[in-house]
Amino acid sequence: MDELTLIGIGTGNPDHLTLQGIAAMRAADLVLIPRKGTTKADLADLRRAICARVLGDDAPIVEFDMPRRDADGDYLDAVDAWHDAIARAWTAAGAQARRVALLIWGDPSLYDSALRIAARLAPAPRLRVVPGITALQALCAAHRIPLNDIGAPVLVTTGRRLRAEGWPPGAGTVAVMLDSGGAYESLYPAGITIWWGAYLGMPQELTLAGPLAELAPRIAQTRAAARARHGWIMDIYLMRRTDPAAKDTP
Amino acid sequence: MDELTLIGIGTGNPDHLTLQGIAAMRAADLVLIPRKGTTKADLADLRRAICARVLGDDAPIVEFDMPRRDADGDYLDAVDAWHDAIARAWTAAGAQARRVALLIWGDPSLYDSALRIAARLAPAPRLRVVPGITALQALCAAHRIPLNDIGAPVLVTTGRRLRAEGWPPGAGTVAVMLDSGGAYESLYPAGITIWWGAYLGMPQELTLAGPLAELAPRIAQTRAAARARHGWIMDIYLMRRTDPAAKDTP
Ligand SMILES: C[S@@+](CC[C@H](N)C(=O)[O-])C[C@H]1O[C@@H](n2cnc3c(N)ncnc32)[C@H](O)[C@@H]1O
Ligand SMILES: C[S@@+](CC[C@H](N)C(=O)[O-])C[C@H]1O[C@@H](n2cnc3c(N)ncnc32)[C@H](O)[C@@H]1O
Repeated sequence: MDELTLIGIGTGNPDHLTLQGIAAMRAADLVLIPRKGTTKADLADLRRAICARVLGDDAPIVEFDMPRRDADGDYLDAVDAWHDAIARAWTAAGAQARRVALLIWGDPSLYDSALRIAARLAPAPRLRVVPGITALQALCAAHRIPLNDIGAPVLVTTGRRLRAEGWPPGAGTVAVMLDSGGAYESLYPAGITIWWGAYLGMPQELTLAGPLAELAPRIAQTRAAARARHGWIMDIYLMRRTDPAAKDTP
Repeated sequence: MDELTLIGIGTGNPDHLTLQGIAAMRAADLVLIPRKGTTKADLADLRRAICARVLGDDAPIVEFDMPRRDADGDYLDAVDAWHDAIARAWTAAGAQARRVALLIWGDPSLYDSALRIAARLAPAPRLRVVPGITALQALCAAHRIPLNDIGAPVLVTTGRRLRAEGWPPGAGTVAVMLDSGGAYESLYPAGITIWWGAYLGMPQELTLAGPLAELAPRIAQTRAAARARHGWIMDIYLMRRTDPAAKDTP
């Protein structure tokens, strides 16, 4: 493997693909596609469909099974071992090719491990990154809202952090990704508006928006029902607090 | 104007265009292109080149002169009056068409006024938003770095805020846009790494990265020289602090 290109493919809508992404796919000798188990089969299907569309039916694809992360023990240690395992899987799957491409969900820079895993490859291939549409942008586009208030900052964080730390001190706008469900329930909801979206860009796209106090139970219900129906869910939300200095408890 | 589509075109590389953006351009009766004065003529040229490529030489383009923002008086009042003036300019320029498209630099949701201006149109057209690659993603791709540390938050802010408020309390990663120059100089630089980029995605792209203490003067120099040569500059940077709890003064 002389060259590895991480190609952001957007978040479910095959039309999120950029012309740069298409050119990078065509320039590759081999496209690696991760298989993540049956529940997320839709996601591998989307990658296959993108390859077929861009490269034709005899696209040079190699699929590999994604190693699983150890759920026990220290979180960062488990991530470390997992990244090593993925690097080995890439090396094995890409062994026959010089120029390898990996299709990355959304953008390779946002809550994705591929860049960190690529840094473990030895010998190190030449690395290229092609940006892609993120879930955050798909969320704002679906709701037709700006990410930021005029001239104001935005904090992008995870469900785990929000749950552990509450509303970030002084923040006006907070975007939350990687929430395993309902981290917003840990907030005192007065004065907070939420814009929520699941399966953004995909046929099953869902969106809800309104005051957090009213929306929290509806989102929980909608999320649980959709998850049961499809077997998996990916969701993201943006929250704005009218008064950033408001208290976290009544 | 029945329908207005805000199309994110990415940040200078015409190949940032998505398939969704191309389809939306083709579906429009008219594409509005803002003229922002001679210094930023490159940017209008890029929009024209994108239209010619996607729609052919007889693309249905209308150019209009962007009103200027009043530099005196209250900032938010001036922005308010400016947005009204732009809404009138859109209405005048788009008067002959039913389906109007506007090409937006980067993504329409990120530090862009188009969504707020669109909300002032009366009667209100149907609004659609097509996401585009942001400068933040172009920066991370050019440096081949993740935006976030593993599972950690990212604050996206402006040069004005950074200068006024210093390093955001507790932040590990801070991305800065809309800096008229050198807001990072107001920080105590120990323990901070900076990744800087200007004209990202464009032929004149510049990048620099390293410890802020060393890089600050080099970035200032490089920026001033490039600005003098091209007549304009757009730059963005990401900073990470090894120790988020570090002091802001020695
Ligand atoms: C591992 S991160 C990858 C993010 C991706 N690299 C990006 O640029 O959007 C996965 C998280 O992204 C968000 N996400 C990704 N795709 C999504 C979609 N189609 N709809 C809603 N949320 C999505 C969810 O918050 C999910 O937990
Ligand atoms: C008015 S904001 C628009 C941002 C745009 N909507 C986006 O999604 O990137 C302009 C700021 O974006 C950043 N920017 C936009 N294009 C850039 C480029 N090609 N290179 C570096 N910075 C850029 C700069 O920080 C600039 O001050």
